[in-house]
Amino acid sequence: MIKDARDDLTQDAYLGGKVKLWQPRKGYRAGIDAVLLAAAVPASTGQSVLDLGCGAGAAMLCLGARVPGLTLTGVERDAAYASLAARNGPALEVVEADINDLPLSIRERQFDHLMANPPYFDRAASRPSADSAREAAHGAQTPLADWVRIAGKRLKPNGCATFIHRAERLPDLLRAMPKDLGSIAVLPLAARHGRAADRVILRAFKNRRGQFRLLAPLVMHEGAAHLDDAVDDYTPMVRSVLRDAAALEF
Amino acid sequence: MIKDARDDLTQDAYLGGKVKLWQPRKGYRAGIDAVLLAAAVPASTGQSVLDLGCGAGAAMLCLGARVPGLTLTGVERDAAYASLAARNGPALEVVEADINDLPLSIRERQFDHLMANPPYFDRAASRPSADSAREAAHGAQTPLADWVRIAGKRLKPNGCATFIHRAERLPDLLRAMPKDLGSIAVLPLAARHGRAADRVILRAFKNRRGQFRLLAPLVMHEGAAHLDDAVDDYTPMVRSVLRDAAALEF
Repeated sequence: MIKDARDDLTQDAYLGGKVKLWQPRKGYRAGIDAVLLAAAVPASTGQSVLDLGCGAGAAMLCLGARVPGLTLTGVERDAAYASLAARNGPALEVVEADINDLPLSIRERQFDHLMANPPYFDRAASRPSADSAREAAHGAQTPLADWVRIAGKRLKPNGCATFIHRAERLPDLLRAMPKDLGSIAVLPLAARHGRAADRVILRAFKNRRGQFRLLAPLVMHEGAAHLDDAVDDYTPMVRSVLRDAAALEF
Repeated sequence: MIKDARDDLTQDAYLGGKVKLWQPRKGYRAGIDAVLLAAAVPASTGQSVLDLGCGAGAAMLCLGARVPGLTLTGVERDAAYASLAARNGPALEVVEADINDLPLSIRERQFDHLMANPPYFDRAASRPSADSAREAAHGAQTPLADWVRIAGKRLKPNGCATFIHRAERLPDLLRAMPKDLGSIAVLPLAARHGRAADRVILRAFKNRRGQFRLLAPLVMHEGAAHLDDAVDDYTPMVRSVLRDAAALEF
């Protein structure tokens, strides 16, 4: 981690150093969710990807590090994060906008892929954070249903939407899914074998009508408990996603 | 299996012989889903249980074999199955009725527990079976949303509804869940380790508001594939549920 005292930023490494990201020392900071989200997007060279609520650009940069030749476009409401995303990825197209008020440059386009890590908590059920950017990332000022609906609109036919969210919000995600997003697959993410899922990755395809699939969970850590902070206990699949930019195939 | 040639019935054993069930040789026959459903109902002695669409009574009899002193009431639309349920369980209360047209004797009561194994296929998306009873069990003449809504109505406050269904219908189950059923937990059932779920058991409580939980899957069979038809390859937990009437705790 490199500190930039002037801007109160740090530079953090992802994917074993393949991605370096300036982000605020305080406030919302990209975690492994952004890396897992990017790993789950089944994009191939030449395709276009829209990241709704891209923050400082972590998911876009991770996806770009795995799949060369993508056109990556991020929408971010917070000006400071939008500016960081542009600084972090000069090749990215970053648009400062609220997803409910997208500019024509986005509304007139449809993308092969869409990815989003929508705010994790419902404002009604939790206390606002003191930090406004952290608040925008964690607190759902924009309802989850809007994220899903707008995702559907911005996809090409057969385009794929990939979301990561807290497992407890899976019913809300499924209820919000518009009729033209089908062939839904849910990958539960569980901290350890035998535990309830704490995250889900949900993938859906525009205008497809395949049956819903509830996949076997991806277990993040080996063993039944965390025994030693010095030891990285990620399972081999997760380690290769986090370190070697492997794809999460499902 | 004992055959009753006169009625074209067979008598089949469940729970290692603790339950014996007369059922039609052809048509809908109770499988392990009914046993798993009964195992997942967290009933205790003295409580009341309503089984919507009880068929020949398999789930009620399995639940009664595990938990003594329950009041067990089953509703079954098909007269032949309702009559078999009464024959199979003389202590059961069996009501021949459509769940959308319940008699006052049911509508004026609320139950501690409700369980249901709703029809597995949407009529719109599949071909009707030639056998009418099989058709009623497998084909959804009554929409899934009705099963869930009626379940909610017939529960006492804090009462528990338990459903088993195909995993591909989980989004429909969740979308159908009325607002007064909360603290939902979903137990995926997977044939083997690493496979997508093929069934889900969903539990919800009336007037509770706990967070949704997606549990670790219950794996039915050991190993990666079925190698020998002569060998019972159930996992230890499933074997104890199917043979020894163990509860499915979650």
